[in-house]
Amino acid sequence: MSAPVVTFLSDYGYGDEFAGVCRGVLASRCPQARIIDMTHGVPRHDVRAGALMLRSALAFMPAGIHLAVVDPTVGATGEDARRAVAVLVAEQDRVLVGPDNGLLALALARFGGPIEAVDVGRSPYRLEPLSATFHGRDIFAPVAAALAGGAPLADVGEPMPVEDLRGLELPEAHLGPDGLLVHALTLDRFGNVILDAEHHQLSAADLRLGSTLSVRAAGREHPARYAGTFADVPPGGLLLYEDAQRMAALAVNRGSAAETLGVARDDALLLRPR
Amino acid sequence: MSAPVVTFLSDYGYGDEFAGVCRGVLASRCPQARIIDMTHGVPRHDVRAGALMLRSALAFMPAGIHLAVVDPTVGATGEDARRAVAVLVAEQDRVLVGPDNGLLALALARFGGPIEAVDVGRSPYRLEPLSATFHGRDIFAPVAAALAGGAPLADVGEPMPVEDLRGLELPEAHLGPDGLLVHALTLDRFGNVILDAEHHQLSAADLRLGSTLSVRAAGREHPARYAGTFADVPPGGLLLYEDAQRMAALAVNRGSAAETLGVARDDALLLRPR
Amino acid sequence: MSAPVVTFLSDYGYGDEFAGVCRGVLASRCPQARIIDMTHGVPRHDVRAGALMLRSALAFMPAGIHLAVVDPTVGATGEDARRAVAVLVAEQDRVLVGPDNGLLALALARFGGPIEAVDVGRSPYRLEPLSATFHGRDIFAPVAAALAGGAPLADVGEPMPVEDLRGLELPEAHLGPDGLLVHALTLDRFGNVILDAEHHQLSAADLRLGSTLSVRAAGREHPARYAGTFADVPPGGLLLYEDAQRMAALAVNRGSAAETLGVARDDALLLRPR
Repeated sequence: MSAPVVTFLSDYGYGDEFAGVCRGVLASRCPQARIIDMTHGVPRHDVRAGALMLRSALAFMPAGIHLAVVDPTVGATGEDARRAVAVLVAEQDRVLVGPDNGLLALALARFGGPIEAVDVGRSPYRLEPLSATFHGRDIFAPVAAALAGGAPLADVGEPMPVEDLRGLELPEAHLGPDGLLVHALTLDRFGNVILDAEHHQLSAADLRLGSTLSVRAAGREHPARYAGTFADVPPGGLLLYEDAQRMAALAVNRGSAAETLGVARDDALLLRPR
Repeated sequence: MSAPVVTFLSDYGYGDEFAGVCRGVLASRCPQARIIDMTHGVPRHDVRAGALMLRSALAFMPAGIHLAVVDPTVGATGEDARRAVAVLVAEQDRVLVGPDNGLLALALARFGGPIEAVDVGRSPYRLEPLSATFHGRDIFAPVAAALAGGAPLADVGEPMPVEDLRGLELPEAHLGPDGLLVHALTLDRFGNVILDAEHHQLSAADLRLGSTLSVRAAGREHPARYAGTFADVPPGGLLLYEDAQRMAALAVNRGSAAETLGVARDDALLLRPR
Repeated sequence: MSAPVVTFLSDYGYGDEFAGVCRGVLASRCPQARIIDMTHGVPRHDVRAGALMLRSALAFMPAGIHLAVVDPTVGATGEDARRAVAVLVAEQDRVLVGPDNGLLALALARFGGPIEAVDVGRSPYRLEPLSATFHGRDIFAPVAAALAGGAPLADVGEPMPVEDLRGLELPEAHLGPDGLLVHALTLDRFGNVILDAEHHQLSAADLRLGSTLSVRAAGREHPARYAGTFADVPPGGLLLYEDAQRMAALAVNRGSAAETLGVARDDALLLRPR
């Protein structure tokens, strides 16, 4: 039998010992668990970027316990407080553990939605004394370790209705009279602009692989090509492509689409055949 | 029985293959060892920052062999030369391996102090030919692997008196007539300023959670709040807090305390109730 | 018996989930494999830097499957297309997996050269649907996992002549009438300049450890010392040294040789005794 798997995604970065401390807690509490670092490079406090990464990467991870921590309001009380949760999905034997601030929402939906959830904020497995700022170490890692070690979901927290789990609002592409109105969901570190358009929406807007199009952004029109790969356009050329996660994206071959187009997150862009 | 654990902290960073090469040596020499990366993001050559990280993180690591490499004088001879050591602590079955330049000192003290030490500079386990600049690969990793594989401490080096191990000098907070005089021990990458004040010193200076205080730094007074978490002050607000390692620290919510206060490492600051 | 080893080097960096997704594929397809991250910090698209790192680091890795991905022309067709390959070396039981763009060439040569190669571009183990841009996930990681799980080389791709594997062109140092003409092979992130000179060439040019020399770069002469370690010259001093990989290199103690000398990759420099 294989070792239980704990995957781990966070915005802790690599300059501090935070991710390492969580790995230590996991290995201390569940020595037989195998830890797979997905990334700790989620932009700091960027719940949406983390949620998108988690959704796209999770299908490639072995089923197991999936720890995710991007937690800008950690320790907050009152209306800013967020729950700490562990959630079982419908379609595979996967349990997600993390803050209930939308970070888990897209991944949960991808696997058929949540079917059982517990609030782990007062989990019997949490470390004491609880710090105000490092729940990755004090709550999420020990709860993930307990689950990896075989503890039933009901033992690590208090049951809560799955309907109470927080969603994540994203802009939505739609087809208008002038073309396909899309939005910059995220920008990656290379300046590629990830859009909210799906494949069928590109088709409905008469945008087809190999054809040319016009991209309207920040009040200016830019010619582009709907291409299969960066090498299909010359250096400096703008292309629309489906990225490896099957999301529509804009890129400049050996350049930055974000700079070329002058767009920031959530900005609207108009795509139309040329 | 669980696999033997080797934890690993360094300033090798992530841009080079140095940490990976040490992992390769560990896995080659002790295939059954489990390697836990604490961090390789210690600021380059910053022995104090590494010593503080090691002290705060070690308690969350499974007991085992604890490899740490921040080694600015590697290869130096004469009065700049430092020993390479492996040291057993008093309170748990932990052995620390690294350069004897103060890097291990705070962690040793946290676990009851050293009770047995060996100089591993000429260890029979070291790799030959020995390089002048990469003792992580040539000395520390193979010695850590030997210990993880069960070699007794006495077999990996020459005995040395624990009294000869180097300490680490830190500034010390003290209560004066004008308030609590503290120092900037380290600045983290978010601009948070870690102080040398302990909880009981804050109390003795009449600084209490929830109260307001004045912070004097670089000749200017700044109002601040002693808060439980960042969210207790508005964006841009200065707060005093106990960090997750239970050290007093100054931060600016969604900003940089180091910039706001204009302080650098070892600078003195004066804290007093307002 | 030890677990099969998969080492992993790439230019995916740490800001994205790409390396983590490959780790997930490896662990999904071969749960018993041990993954050792060599580095993911190869400068983006820098095949030469990756090839040099792979060559120098591989000897310290346990023998196994060695996955390497620096793949600037991924997805290209026509004359820019590169093969995807798995290659067995002559001297140890090591198989390298990656793009056939020169990345593997130096490491193959270090281990006696390739003795068997397969083209894995249409491997039965690849993930479907194949993406245009993420062959690390879709081809290289699943092929590496299959090999780690015991699949024979012949089962993971189509046989190809080892003579067809691409080499890597590097500049070559040579001794001229004015001294030893060398080149900047790579610059590391500290500004150290790695040269193409070998130890015997330094000797032939009358450059000996402990002696002084002159370095001509960008039209200017700089005094330097052939030293064993950085500490042998004062801060700001220029030194020639053999690095931990036994390559000649130029450095400035606590400074940047690249800046001091004004050199970029492939620039020629002239070394002569002073």
